[in-house]
Amino acid sequence: MATVKLWNDEEVAANPRIAAVFTDIRSIRGTDFVNNFWRALANQPEILERTWLSIKEIMIKPGALDPLTKELIYVAVSAANGCSYCIHSHTAAARAKGLTGQQHAELVAVIAMAAETNALATTLQIPVDPEFTIE
Amino acid sequence: MATVKLWNDEEVAANPRIAAVFTDIRSIRGTDFVNNFWRALANQPEILERTWLSIKEIMIKPGALDPLTKELIYVAVSAANGCSYCIHSHTAAARAKGLTGQQHAELVAVIAMAAETNALATTLQIPVDPEFTIE
Amino acid sequence: MATVKLWNDEEVAANPRIAAVFTDIRSIRGTDFVNNFWRALANQPEILERTWLSIKEIMIKPGALDPLTKELIYVAVSAANGCSYCIHSHTAAARAKGLTGQQHAELVAVIAMAAETNALATTLQIPVDPEFTIE
Amino acid sequence: MATVKLWNDEEVAANPRIAAVFTDIRSIRGTDFVNNFWRALANQPEILERTWLSIKEIMIKPGALDPLTKELIYVAVSAANGCSYCIHSHTAAARAKGLTGQQHAELVAVIAMAAETNALATTLQIPVDPEFTIE
Amino acid sequence: MATVKLWNDEEVAANPRIAAVFTDIRSIRGTDFVNNFWRALANQPEILERTWLSIKEIMIKPGALDPLTKELIYVAVSAANGCSYCIHSHTAAARAKGLTGQQHAELVAVIAMAAETNALATTLQIPVDPEFTIE
Amino acid sequence: MATVKLWNDEEVAANPRIAAVFTDIRSIRGTDFVNNFWRALANQPEILERTWLSIKEIMIKPGALDPLTKELIYVAVSAANGCSYCIHSHTAAARAKGLTGQQHAELVAVIAMAAETNALATTLQIPVDPEFTIE
Repeated sequence: MATVKLWNDEEVAANPRIAAVFTDIRSIRGTDFVNNFWRALANQPEILERTWLSIKEIMIKPGALDPLTKELIYVAVSAANGCSYCIHSHTAAARAKGLTGQQHAELVAVIAMAAETNALATTLQIPVDPEFTIE
Repeated sequence: MATVKLWNDEEVAANPRIAAVFTDIRSIRGTDFVNNFWRALANQPEILERTWLSIKEIMIKPGALDPLTKELIYVAVSAANGCSYCIHSHTAAARAKGLTGQQHAELVAVIAMAAETNALATTLQIPVDPEFTIE
Repeated sequence: MATVKLWNDEEVAANPRIAAVFTDIRSIRGTDFVNNFWRALANQPEILERTWLSIKEIMIKPGALDPLTKELIYVAVSAANGCSYCIHSHTAAARAKGLTGQQHAELVAVIAMAAETNALATTLQIPVDPEFTIE
Repeated sequence: MATVKLWNDEEVAANPRIAAVFTDIRSIRGTDFVNNFWRALANQPEILERTWLSIKEIMIKPGALDPLTKELIYVAVSAANGCSYCIHSHTAAARAKGLTGQQHAELVAVIAMAAETNALATTLQIPVDPEFTIE
Repeated sequence: MATVKLWNDEEVAANPRIAAVFTDIRSIRGTDFVNNFWRALANQPEILERTWLSIKEIMIKPGALDPLTKELIYVAVSAANGCSYCIHSHTAAARAKGLTGQQHAELVAVIAMAAETNALATTLQIPVDPEFTIE
Repeated sequence: MATVKLWNDEEVAANPRIAAVFTDIRSIRGTDFVNNFWRALANQPEILERTWLSIKEIMIKPGALDPLTKELIYVAVSAANGCSYCIHSHTAAARAKGLTGQQHAELVAVIAMAAETNALATTLQIPVDPEFTIE
């Protein structure tokens, strides 16, 4: 499982460009643990740098949506896309940001309800109401 | 477009079982407008009743997640599932619940970022870290 | 809409290889109407021939599943894949093979229920029971 | 694997609301075996109850489609959605309802053929024939 | 159609941040035509800038894969994801980069074949051979 | 894992119809190794024969796209469809055909970028520019 090598800490330390990103991840997250996602991206330094930069811009920088809401959206997209890795990592991230059991139950309920009504609208090929479009 | 008939108000009024659901939709939403989704489901009274009941339970009944957050999750799932109808209707619903332009921009950014990293994790088949699983 | 040309009857008639397939389609289906799917594939004679051959083998040749059941499976896959063209054409094909309104309602209900429980199982990453696997 | 706890029989027995659903599942299915799907949903009693109720309404209550046909549709949707858990559980359910090897081979052939022509229609963005739409 | 406003040239010209990106797009592409994708992203300046920067890095900067091959991959992903807009725009882009009719026919054949065997492998839940994994 | 039996070499040898396909696979590929995909399809001789024939026609017969390019398209579709088996097998096939680390990095980058812009175009429901359609 994995179509690329996962870099261990020694390999990361030996490559300054990769090491710089890992140091930033550890510093911003306040933990030594770096998950496999980044250890796989280490094979492609440009993707590693660009992805970490985007994560910082979109998920970490304060904005109009709070961090937990962003994680819920992330889990929802990952579930709909069937990405096992991302469902696990972002459910864990949501819990670390305070997700309660009741909130998780409602998240799961909304995801399943949306999947169900998506299937209804698609199977029936329901036309969009003009009221829902931007002129 | 549409693989079933969309019921107009006269047809709905002539069928008490369908009419009862439409009356409840109008009453709870406080508007006479009933969108095509329900006019298509009118062909299948059991699905119509069950779906409206679920929507009330999951999306309308107060819970641990606020109504706008639920709409954001709904848009996210609908986008990942490529359901044009649902993207339109739930983006409109989110706006009706106060979604600002900046919040929409961040929602779109998180959805796109999640799709991107889903693709990375899937293409590289990255194994789930043991830290992310429930023992 | 369409990233390739749709061949009209004159263009088809002028190309013997394409014309042969269209003649076979009309003969086996017992109608002069040839839908856009085949008019688009006419740009790629090898795909046209191979696809029509597969359709005859899989959908038309008598087998262990009856023709209407095969169309229901086809609609289900097309809905889950979000293929608007195929949902329309195979719902029409199912109706031509006798699909009743009640059967359609149940097909739609099963598709939606499956989409919902797929979302539940995926979001919760439920492990497969050993009882369900082939040794 | 699993982003929530799977409830064992002792935990289920200690919670009357959950236990009632499990008792009904065992009674209606005529077996003591309760698969992981329900043990995962036990974390969310409302989803557990609503899902089991829907399954009874849609999959178990006699209707216009026979039980095996419904399972084939379920497998088809689950395959198209890439839900490993549901493919396993509903293929097993179809076998328990009498699915033969030849029927399974034809199910697989139709799913694969539909996926192929879905891809053709989508890649070529073929427009829907007016003949296939409801007025 | 569209859940956001599409910016016309006057609106773009009135906003220096957006105008700068549009000027760069026109200059690098050597044409005055700017497609709707960018006119929709103009509502979210940060996404507009980040996306254009990524496109330049990934699709335009010379690399180990030639530009036409990258467009074929782009069309393939867009088709599998069912993104109508992206299928249209990247098929057009591939043609502008020299895609021949025969190459398009083979692209379509590979996409359809992959979709078919993806469906086979998923429906049968075939386990990955150890030979295919990175130790 | 697997909803059907995987045929071992003894079982294959005992069935002349299956054995003939396996002999052809070994001969054309120049190796004794036959991967699980074919061992699973052995349960359905018609699908086995038709699929191997299509693979030879589409992936092996010389054409307008070179073999490595076809594998990249195959990986891209498989990733977008979330087919773990196919991602592993076709990434391995691409490497066997000379895929370099830098080419793999660019393939991954294009797949992820496409997934991201697919999500943007779909979430915003951007209308197709008339310039991108065939007359």
